[in-house]
Amino acid sequence: MNSKGRITYNLIAGTSVERLAALSDGIFGVAMTLLLLDLHVPEKDLVVRVGLWQALHGLLPSLAVYLMSFITLGIFWVGQQTQLNHLERSDRQLTWIHLAFLFMVTLLPFSTRLLADYMEQPAALLVYWFNILLFGLALYASWGRARRAKLIRDDLPFETQAAICNRIIVGQSLYAFGALLFVISTYVSIAFILLVQLNYVFAPGEWLKRKSDRG
Amino acid sequence: MNSKGRITYNLIAGTSVERLAALSDGIFGVAMTLLLLDLHVPEKDLVVRVGLWQALHGLLPSLAVYLMSFITLGIFWVGQQTQLNHLERSDRQLTWIHLAFLFMVTLLPFSTRLLADYMEQPAALLVYWFNILLFGLALYASWGRARRAKLIRDDLPFETQAAICNRIIVGQSLYAFGALLFVISTYVSIAFILLVQLNYVFAPGEWLKRKSDRG
Amino acid sequence: MNSKGRITYNLIAGTSVERLAALSDGIFGVAMTLLLLDLHVPEKDLVVRVGLWQALHGLLPSLAVYLMSFITLGIFWVGQQTQLNHLERSDRQLTWIHLAFLFMVTLLPFSTRLLADYMEQPAALLVYWFNILLFGLALYASWGRARRAKLIRDDLPFETQAAICNRIIVGQSLYAFGALLFVISTYVSIAFILLVQLNYVFAPGEWLKRKSDRG
Amino acid sequence: MNSKGRITYNLIAGTSVERLAALSDGIFGVAMTLLLLDLHVPEKDLVVRVGLWQALHGLLPSLAVYLMSFITLGIFWVGQQTQLNHLERSDRQLTWIHLAFLFMVTLLPFSTRLLADYMEQPAALLVYWFNILLFGLALYASWGRARRAKLIRDDLPFETQAAICNRIIVGQSLYAFGALLFVISTYVSIAFILLVQLNYVFAPGEWLKRKSDRG
Repeated sequence: MNSKGRITYNLIAGTSVERLAALSDGIFGVAMTLLLLDLHVPEKDLVVRVGLWQALHGLLPSLAVYLMSFITLGIFWVGQQTQLNHLERSDRQLTWIHLAFLFMVTLLPFSTRLLADYMEQPAALLVYWFNILLFGLALYASWGRARRAKLIRDDLPFETQAAICNRIIVGQSLYAFGALLFVISTYVSIAFILLVQLNYVFAPGEWLKRKSDRG
Repeated sequence: MNSKGRITYNLIAGTSVERLAALSDGIFGVAMTLLLLDLHVPEKDLVVRVGLWQALHGLLPSLAVYLMSFITLGIFWVGQQTQLNHLERSDRQLTWIHLAFLFMVTLLPFSTRLLADYMEQPAALLVYWFNILLFGLALYASWGRARRAKLIRDDLPFETQAAICNRIIVGQSLYAFGALLFVISTYVSIAFILLVQLNYVFAPGEWLKRKSDRG
Repeated sequence: MNSKGRITYNLIAGTSVERLAALSDGIFGVAMTLLLLDLHVPEKDLVVRVGLWQALHGLLPSLAVYLMSFITLGIFWVGQQTQLNHLERSDRQLTWIHLAFLFMVTLLPFSTRLLADYMEQPAALLVYWFNILLFGLALYASWGRARRAKLIRDDLPFETQAAICNRIIVGQSLYAFGALLFVISTYVSIAFILLVQLNYVFAPGEWLKRKSDRG
Repeated sequence: MNSKGRITYNLIAGTSVERLAALSDGIFGVAMTLLLLDLHVPEKDLVVRVGLWQALHGLLPSLAVYLMSFITLGIFWVGQQTQLNHLERSDRQLTWIHLAFLFMVTLLPFSTRLLADYMEQPAALLVYWFNILLFGLALYASWGRARRAKLIRDDLPFETQAAICNRIIVGQSLYAFGALLFVISTYVSIAFILLVQLNYVFAPGEWLKRKSDRG
């Protein structure tokens, strides 16, 4: 194939935002459900020895890590959706940036099991953080590509475009700071990252702001 | 990011009902298929000893629990769909309420295996019921949020809006009563919950009503 | 909730054909991919002893059963799609008929493993056939409901409506005959069912007909 | 059913491109996520002996194979999407060609595990390459069918139609050449195939061309 043929192909390849969104929903859906697949029902032996309530109680730390990963996936699913909602169309390069993003999504169940099994080891925490960092880099690259290639809908005000980038930078700075706290203790790290996440989920700042506007 | 930046971001985040519906279908689809993954083909040893029919017969109680969980997921999938069908749009908070709902969905295969393995233990039954309770709370919170934030389509009559809430309250009361029956026997509990579910599936009341209207 | 409230709810519940199609695609997608999950890579010991080609060769019978199940799922996915494409809307009862259909879909990976493990046992073959029979009954009931409740689009000619029913009856008769062949040998049964399926996939009758029309 | 009834049925069966796309996204999503499911967290014994960093380091070759398979799936997902985006509608035969394509997709996690486990064996490499070849044959057959049955949208220029075929032929020739390199070493084969894939992902030719156009 001469270079002209390939360029023609590349112009028409991967232009559907809808298909990209559908594949993403599929991968996020599977990854979110598989997280919990490693939460095993307590063994009969253990239940006979300590009772079922006690055995279930022992699963709570793992459950907390799985919940944290579900929230992580939720945050980045919302983040990706927010970008895709404002795209007029996709192109081949943007599609591959998102496929890279989705590869990171399929890695998270591994990083989660690693952290659940080795919670006290800095290596496990750093792998987990690195996974989150790659999420952020991919979404940042995606938005940059969308701006350069003019894939964004016209009706999106410039300040909102900037807000999407700022959001990623502030979030990733907080995650990086949280990961660095491993020098004190990996548990402090995990607690800090969970707090940052809950802040994104509940957005208490927004709520306080609106309350003061009305008050 | 100053608080203004974040509020701008939060205004545009998670507004797509379609993406939320697609992610939900993905997660429900995976969870519904994974339920049965724990139904293992009988071992060769057992088959040699008692024959294949007999060995398959021994799987029936587990199959009943998986069927019950499939119906549970079906009921709440229909319930969530009914809400989403009437939304004009979503917002960030509604999206997170539904992500919490979906986390409960990913928990159900675990609760199901727990109940299948420890059918006679009140703890297993109460965990299962608690999972159903959280489904109800999430859908109730979702509808409340949708009403407060005016996300519901204009053409939905007020009485239908109320019917959605009533439905959840009545259903959850019946499930709670069923769960309480564990003081008699967990098998009575399971039978009662299954009857409530079959009532929702076949809706015999509606059928009798229509018959008497015509008669 | 009084009976009026419930009827109002039931009128608005489960009306989206799109959501039903999306859930079906999710469940079919997972079930089709999980079929192959039981195809295990040959063990190192075996490979050392007989070589990799020989070890892979031993997987071919299992692969044939998985292929047969993939075709089964494909045939019924096309069958369900053909029905849903012609619906104006869904209702609560049709939705539950399709949820029952989807439960059968989640059962097929189990029936498949059973048949792959016990290919020479009539019980395994009859369970597999029973699964296919339930597919047919669900699709037949679905079309009946759609006709009674006037959910079908106006533009569908009556003869096509009848063709959908006939298709199911003829197909199921052939499957039932194939299953009965187990009295000769389960392998004859499997071969016959596979031939029926390949007939549906390649539709040689249609091809010969068109050729004679042109010739 | 007489042959007329069947032909009527076959005319209306499998006509929805949207459903085909949705099923494909489901299957690709599950297959892409399952690839990584075999990446197991290091055992406690190993971690105690060599440390977690060292144990994670040992996973890198497997991770590289999984990444290669993810890219393979990504390339063919983009390729299939590019075809489907330009179809006006589907028909029964095109649907079955794509179902055959999707069967190959569900085979890839098996081929991947095989290659990850037996990287130095030509048989594993040839099975992997054969899987890619079948992808190409299916997509080529799909485009041929779409052209013959006039399923393609009118607005697609003829040269783009040709580009899609050329793309497949050139790509498959490169893969076949890469696979043949196993006579030197399977590692050379894998490296060559990975380079071909990275060329498709990053499309450096396109980038250089545009640069020289502007310069």
